[in-house]
Amino acid sequence: VNLILLEPDAIVDRHVTLSGAQARHLIEVLRVTSGQDVRIGVIDGAKGVGRITAMLHGSVTLECRLDPEPPPRPDIDLLLALPRPKVMRRLWAQLAALGVGRIVLTNASRVERNYFDAHVLESACYRPLLIEGLQQAQDTRLPEVSVHRRFKVLIEDLLDTLCPGADRFVAHPSAGSAAVAGAWTGTRRALLAVGPEGGWDDYEMRLLEAHGFRPVSLGPRTLRTDTACVALLTALRSRR
Amino acid sequence: VNLILLEPDAIVDRHVTLSGAQARHLIEVLRVTSGQDVRIGVIDGAKGVGRITAMLHGSVTLECRLDPEPPPRPDIDLLLALPRPKVMRRLWAQLAALGVGRIVLTNASRVERNYFDAHVLESACYRPLLIEGLQQAQDTRLPEVSVHRRFKVLIEDLLDTLCPGADRFVAHPSAGSAAVAGAWTGTRRALLAVGPEGGWDDYEMRLLEAHGFRPVSLGPRTLRTDTACVALLTALRSRR
Repeated sequence: VNLILLEPDAIVDRHVTLSGAQARHLIEVLRVTSGQDVRIGVIDGAKGVGRITAMLHGSVTLECRLDPEPPPRPDIDLLLALPRPKVMRRLWAQLAALGVGRIVLTNASRVERNYFDAHVLESACYRPLLIEGLQQAQDTRLPEVSVHRRFKVLIEDLLDTLCPGADRFVAHPSAGSAAVAGAWTGTRRALLAVGPEGGWDDYEMRLLEAHGFRPVSLGPRTLRTDTACVALLTALRSRR
Repeated sequence: VNLILLEPDAIVDRHVTLSGAQARHLIEVLRVTSGQDVRIGVIDGAKGVGRITAMLHGSVTLECRLDPEPPPRPDIDLLLALPRPKVMRRLWAQLAALGVGRIVLTNASRVERNYFDAHVLESACYRPLLIEGLQQAQDTRLPEVSVHRRFKVLIEDLLDTLCPGADRFVAHPSAGSAAVAGAWTGTRRALLAVGPEGGWDDYEMRLLEAHGFRPVSLGPRTLRTDTACVALLTALRSRR
């Protein structure tokens, strides 16, 4: 943990008292002492510094000084065909750490229907994992998450509202695809679509291209969904 | 699995008979039938096509046609401060899938000593994981692996032999570091050093810089070792 993230209502009169896992982390891992400063942030709010003013019975009280402005929201959104639950579980923290504004999870013909019933799509499961990733990366901007079972409705009717005015890219390992690095100028937000393990089918690719998604590729190596997401987000950002 | 990797001595007189997990994968997942072609490769050898000539009692026989040349060895080597076993286990397949020529694992002051006793450093554990990554990425080039407990000896005495003539980079999140993307021209091999979760210490950074490692950075976000490795390898390759 490189920054302690606090719930927006946790700071009262510039002070916060932590107990439970966050207090234990400060005491047992960071081995803080009274008077010491630690990096803090408010979920979807500003970053800052907390000075430890009291440590009592396993709780830790901090006096908070926050920056005037929150950090900017990450300028890439991800449209991801829902991977199997084990892979999705690994992805949450990594996506938050890399920085994405919104995570739009969708059905596709090569997505197994029962993936949508997984515990890992419940906010109670993924929110702590997103927060873990933000604390690792020292960010406060919690990705917005939505789950969509109808691909066509999502692409045709909802995406313009969910991700307005974005440059749209779809990862597709075909010969005609542009290299991911260099595809995005960075003047507008980006929306990156990543397909299921077996790829988007022809119908899905046609629908995506008809709605402005440009095919991009990392090259001939086929990567697992989680590795591909990290690599694609990194490559998309790499030339700005 | 996008390609079936075979041991070099498995093909006899242009034919190979698979049993066990590989045969089960062909029969149960890929649902192959006699006469069908599947992508194959020989570990550290050529890729090619195998035509199924017989399926009997759960074994599958293929007639193999191999390319005249093996694919080129990946042109990046990785020098990695040994992460905790759970993270290292996740990394093997991802590194092989991304493509690295050599994985040099090293001690560092912020590496826990008992990480070196982990099962995950035994070839019997990591070789199947590397092969899994190669099969995912459709490559045959098994990364060479070496483990070093003495950092100074490794950097001063061994590295010139292990990774000769490479452009050297060290991931280091400081203000003076160059952006990873664009740092490497790609005219020579690259050797990328990635530190432990807490970073290289001052002594280690001085030793690395004295031996030609240039500091590079992905930006202000601090990433977990596995995410960082995937992102750094991708960004280093992204501008060639």
